Amino acid sequence: MSESTPPDASSALSVPCLRIREPGAPDVLTPSEVILPPPPYGHVRVRIAASGVNRADLLQRQGRYPVPAGFPEDIPGLEFAGEVEAVGEGCFLRRIGDPVMGILGGGGYAAAVNVPERETIRIPEEMEPVTAGAIPEVFVTAWDALEGQAGLRAGETLLIHAVGSGVGTAALQLAVGAGARVIGTTRTPEKVAAAQELGLHDGILASSAAPDEWADEVLSRTGGRGVDVILDLVGGAYLAGNLRVLATKARWVVVGVPGGGQANLDLRRLMTRRAHLMGTVLRARPPEEKALLARAFETRVISRFEVGAGSGRLRPVVDTVLSWRDGADAHRRLEANDTFGKMLLRWE
Amino acid sequence: MSESTPPDASSALSVPCLRIREPGAPDVLTPSEVILPPPPYGHVRVRIAASGVNRADLLQRQGRYPVPAGFPEDIPGLEFAGEVEAVGEGCFLRRIGDPVMGILGGGGYAAAVNVPERETIRIPEEMEPVTAGAIPEVFVTAWDALEGQAGLRAGETLLIHAVGSGVGTAALQLAVGAGARVIGTTRTPEKVAAAQELGLHDGILASSAAPDEWADEVLSRTGGRGVDVILDLVGGAYLAGNLRVLATKARWVVVGVPGGGQANLDLRRLMTRRAHLMGTVLRARPPEEKALLARAFETRVISRFEVGAGSGRLRPVVDTVLSWRDGADAHRRLEANDTFGKMLLRWE
Repeated sequence: MSESTPPDASSALSVPCLRIREPGAPDVLTPSEVILPPPPYGHVRVRIAASGVNRADLLQRQGRYPVPAGFPEDIPGLEFAGEVEAVGEGCFLRRIGDPVMGILGGGGYAAAVNVPERETIRIPEEMEPVTAGAIPEVFVTAWDALEGQAGLRAGETLLIHAVGSGVGTAALQLAVGAGARVIGTTRTPEKVAAAQELGLHDGILASSAAPDEWADEVLSRTGGRGVDVILDLVGGAYLAGNLRVLATKARWVVVGVPGGGQANLDLRRLMTRRAHLMGTVLRARPPEEKALLARAFETRVISRFEVGAGSGRLRPVVDTVLSWRDGADAHRRLEANDTFGKMLLRWE
Repeated sequence: MSESTPPDASSALSVPCLRIREPGAPDVLTPSEVILPPPPYGHVRVRIAASGVNRADLLQRQGRYPVPAGFPEDIPGLEFAGEVEAVGEGCFLRRIGDPVMGILGGGGYAAAVNVPERETIRIPEEMEPVTAGAIPEVFVTAWDALEGQAGLRAGETLLIHAVGSGVGTAALQLAVGAGARVIGTTRTPEKVAAAQELGLHDGILASSAAPDEWADEVLSRTGGRGVDVILDLVGGAYLAGNLRVLATKARWVVVGVPGGGQANLDLRRLMTRRAHLMGTVLRARPPEEKALLARAFETRVISRFEVGAGSGRLRPVVDTVLSWRDGADAHRRLEANDTFGKMLLRWE
């Protein structure tokens, strides 16, 4: 080892984790141990305070989500927040003790993880690391979708489906803070009220009995003009309605498809609206893009979580924090669709 | 009238035209006369040398194409090339005698037309006005789709469906001249050979018996990587194949849907490819956008048709020039899909 490498980075370490015993129901998540090698070149080891629970984790637990190369198939977990406890060679950005968070290709349901330092994001000042666990996946996804893909601007109207979800509540705050008018659909009056506290302008109750009724509502609330941007966290079931509410030159970003991956598309409607339908996903991006996105997010968004941000200040939306030993409960809660904001697992 | 207005702009004029007697077969196109008022403020009157025949004209003749406000329902014609013969007040760009061409919302099957001067485009130097009639609709559409929508770059691979069509042959030349590799599908070996003379790198015969076979061919010729941009002049029938050949971050521009306006879309595929599906149409754009597009096209593209352009020189692709009195024949030829490049109607 070179002299510049701190001593505790030179040895492997065994830490607690949650493993998928076999594909199946929430109970297959089992407390276990994982051995971390010393952090490789350009990597830091982060002691995790909290791991976010994501919808993709549920799919992975059921054996329905392909894991990118280099990540464990049996340890879910796409994000973390904690503190740097060891620094590998070739690191120039982070030091031991830095509070950081970030997105992972997998393996985040563990008490520590090795991660490329340039894919880490500093935790906002004066924020508890556990709370910061509610930021990375949903805020980075929402910011990339609205800013990087759709190019949402002040004065535009944004429609968010499933506005009470993790990504929905993050996108709502980002868009309101950027001067957009936000219309959101969700399934319960309680979620509409909670989203209004985060700045939602128009809440629409979407019922599965009349899947297109929300589209009439959106048109009526926009004077028939429709919306400039759709953040689509639902997919197939809402596709026909989405086509109806596109304003001219609308951008429609598909981030998740729990409501079905397939649907009939009217290409003529896309043409006459001159609309762009964009698919996006974070997990499959090459590491260089992930690092660039983390760097840009740190520069452009983190200060908006801090005291100086004023009235547009962003805040992580935490539904519940559970002990990592209650991972199965966290999965059950998320599967039941009755959360508002993020489910977190705490590692201490 | 102000002193600066030439005298012959002050009186109405009756000129020959082709009218749709009633919706129906090609024979409903009937020689007639249309009365042009003096060119309004900001408009010039153009004596037309040639009018291009477009697929939308066939639909309009059948009563299946809605005509934008301000254009005659019974006179088709989306483009013209000719010479300015009268100038209205408030014109600063064109003078009497200027050779110009352009795109219209309708009414182009006539010996003269009034048009906003800023929507006109100068005809390339040393080009016959009749020949220039093969430029506006197809080259502006193709350039806007590739440059304005898809952002095609040198070194990227472009797939053009119906590469022997008017827009196809224009896009092929624009893309080859911009350093892209072009793969084209078409239905006959003769069209593959003709497109290869225009620079086509890979020609693929598409058969309606096996609608997806071309997709295997595209994958095999790109080492499995697929294509960066699709210029889609077919639509529904090729949608499933298009989804299969998207490279990561591909842009897929839908310009026409003669092969069907509806098809089943796999949103997950769009997500994992991080692809953008873009609808576009020229005719429905507001006049300001049309004028800006004409100005940009004149600046960026016209010189590429001229002598100094060298080996990448663009050329209008003319299938046949017919007398305007043979408009019905021109429609029959286009309907039979056996043209390569443009059908033109001559007005002298």
